[in-house]
Amino acid sequence: MEPNQLLIVFKQTNMQLSGHGNRNVGVLKEAFANISDFDESDIYGQGKWIDDFQAKMAKYLGKEAAVFFPSGTMAQQIALRIWCDEKEIKKVAYHPLSHLEIHEEDGLKELHQIKTILLAERDRVISLEDVMNMKEDVASLLLELPQREIGGQLPDYETLKSIAAFCKEKGIKLHLDGARLFEILPYYNKTAVEISNLFDSVYVSLYKGIGGVAGAILAGDKEFIKKSKIWKRRHGGDLISLYPYIVSSDYYFTRREGKMKEYYQQAKELAWLFNQCTQISTKPEEPVSNMFHVHIAAEKSKVEEILVDIMKETGIGITSNLKEIDERHCYFELSIGDQYGKIEKAKRESVVHLLNKKMNECT
Amino acid sequence: MEPNQLLIVFKQTNMQLSGHGNRNVGVLKEAFANISDFDESDIYGQGKWIDDFQAKMAKYLGKEAAVFFPSGTMAQQIALRIWCDEKEIKKVAYHPLSHLEIHEEDGLKELHQIKTILLAERDRVISLEDVMNMKEDVASLLLELPQREIGGQLPDYETLKSIAAFCKEKGIKLHLDGARLFEILPYYNKTAVEISNLFDSVYVSLYKGIGGVAGAILAGDKEFIKKSKIWKRRHGGDLISLYPYIVSSDYYFTRREGKMKEYYQQAKELAWLFNQCTQISTKPEEPVSNMFHVHIAAEKSKVEEILVDIMKETGIGITSNLKEIDERHCYFELSIGDQYGKIEKAKRESVVHLLNKKMNECT
Repeated sequence: MEPNQLLIVFKQTNMQLSGHGNRNVGVLKEAFANISDFDESDIYGQGKWIDDFQAKMAKYLGKEAAVFFPSGTMAQQIALRIWCDEKEIKKVAYHPLSHLEIHEEDGLKELHQIKTILLAERDRVISLEDVMNMKEDVASLLLELPQREIGGQLPDYETLKSIAAFCKEKGIKLHLDGARLFEILPYYNKTAVEISNLFDSVYVSLYKGIGGVAGAILAGDKEFIKKSKIWKRRHGGDLISLYPYIVSSDYYFTRREGKMKEYYQQAKELAWLFNQCTQISTKPEEPVSNMFHVHIAAEKSKVEEILVDIMKETGIGITSNLKEIDERHCYFELSIGDQYGKIEKAKRESVVHLLNKKMNECT
Repeated sequence: MEPNQLLIVFKQTNMQLSGHGNRNVGVLKEAFANISDFDESDIYGQGKWIDDFQAKMAKYLGKEAAVFFPSGTMAQQIALRIWCDEKEIKKVAYHPLSHLEIHEEDGLKELHQIKTILLAERDRVISLEDVMNMKEDVASLLLELPQREIGGQLPDYETLKSIAAFCKEKGIKLHLDGARLFEILPYYNKTAVEISNLFDSVYVSLYKGIGGVAGAILAGDKEFIKKSKIWKRRHGGDLISLYPYIVSSDYYFTRREGKMKEYYQQAKELAWLFNQCTQISTKPEEPVSNMFHVHIAAEKSKVEEILVDIMKETGIGITSNLKEIDERHCYFELSIGDQYGKIEKAKRESVVHLLNKKMNECT
């Protein structure tokens, strides 16, 4: 099979188990359909659109101020840099599978000379004990909620609170990698303010559960945000016009922020279906957000063939990206969005049953 | 007068001497009007829109490869960082009024620990002698063509060639800050390839003379561009979707790249008009691109009042931003774009005559 066969077939499906649909130009155009041509651009971080959206997000997150960034990569490096400068300690702690550790080409180290302490084993979330047992002084601890690379796992709320209390006592600045903060609120049954209150600084993404075009928000106290704007300029993120991202972020935030509970319930339903299969299990077994990983005990190339067959047969997209764990195990990620609810319940079930059937036939 | 009165009145004018018109949402919407909803987004630097535009710009600039950046600030720091790493010298040279020196919050120093050697006096461009007389080893020399902060001045082509030859001989990587490269080609009467050929790396902006929404191109050899993509990710510039900027860059590049000669001629015409006034002169006296500075020998607050009056009276925008030099001198910048040609010749002349008249009346 061609290397990107799975992606090609996935793109040809009419409906998908995950996501909000194709990330095409229509996403931008829909957001701008009712925006006047005469609305003025923001100019280097100033203007009505950016001011209003930043104020709205600051309020939503219960922080004094917020700033819009083109990317989370930029926002988070900057947050950690500010805390390191303030504490005069060039060291931070986070999970071994943190986005900063594995997806950013070591920007934090190469651009900011910040050393990282990796807490917890790769297959579980950071515990209070991990934090208490740290031997080195760090300026900041970053918690990623949910921990994406292990299927989107979460510590329970009590653990969060105790980590926050410990950090406060020790003077460690607690930063939230909330790329999927909206998505975890239903599980915790808390507001964004209640979760954010535990953290000194908070980053959220506008193109994951929210499904905007791109962009991120960093929130914190006024002094922190003032500094972050200077670093935003240094990083080359203070663009003359960010409104294409801001307008679409605002549009989809309004549409989807209230749907996170629905996505969460649907994720649990779908994970349950997968867990009925003989060679399939999900991580976590019961999702705590809209996302989870589907683990399959079979050779990747075999599973790929089966997925292609099913997607062609049903017209329903399952995944475009299957990852090998070892010769006999592979997995893929699912994040529930608007697409899931568009598929009839019976069809969703039949897709999973078909997968189970075909997996059993070939073993 | 209120501090932003000039800006308010400027925005209320129907026509403007400079620019392409308001930087409003219409700029984006016009570019997307004929783009299909089904065109796919680029994803983290890959996809048809970004691949095609990068290839187009690489060819236009006569370089092996090009990469689209959200900003020139990011692109140029990265170019200089790559050259510093390659030469193992953490030092570069540029003009004292370089964008990197005065508009980027010292990103080059703070993020890359690169030291800067400032060449030439602030009021003139870098000469061959300045480069030859440098006492310190530098990895790279950045030339900004035209030198924006002094009205957009240029060295002559022979000087450019001799600086390039000297740098080549000494192993100094020559980088072009070509934020306004398109705009200077008519003066040199050269193609973009002919100018770019003198440089190891080239940055161009897509929202100045071209008038796109935002964005920049960095071009060079394949190895250089490969490295720049890694740094782009580190900086947080490798966005999931850059197409809002790319589609609009391509759209306005196609519309305006061929109009630079017209803008240049119009700039010369307008500068000549200003130079007929008794207390007004332009820098340079004869523009070498679409831009120049208008210097007025009078108190800023006085000039501001006069400009507001004229703009209200004629409906023609002159400037929104007057800068004080000292108690008796001020200046503003003009960059000719699509707007200029929309104003009747007699009206353009009458605006300048009116300015001259009112200036004379008050002294």
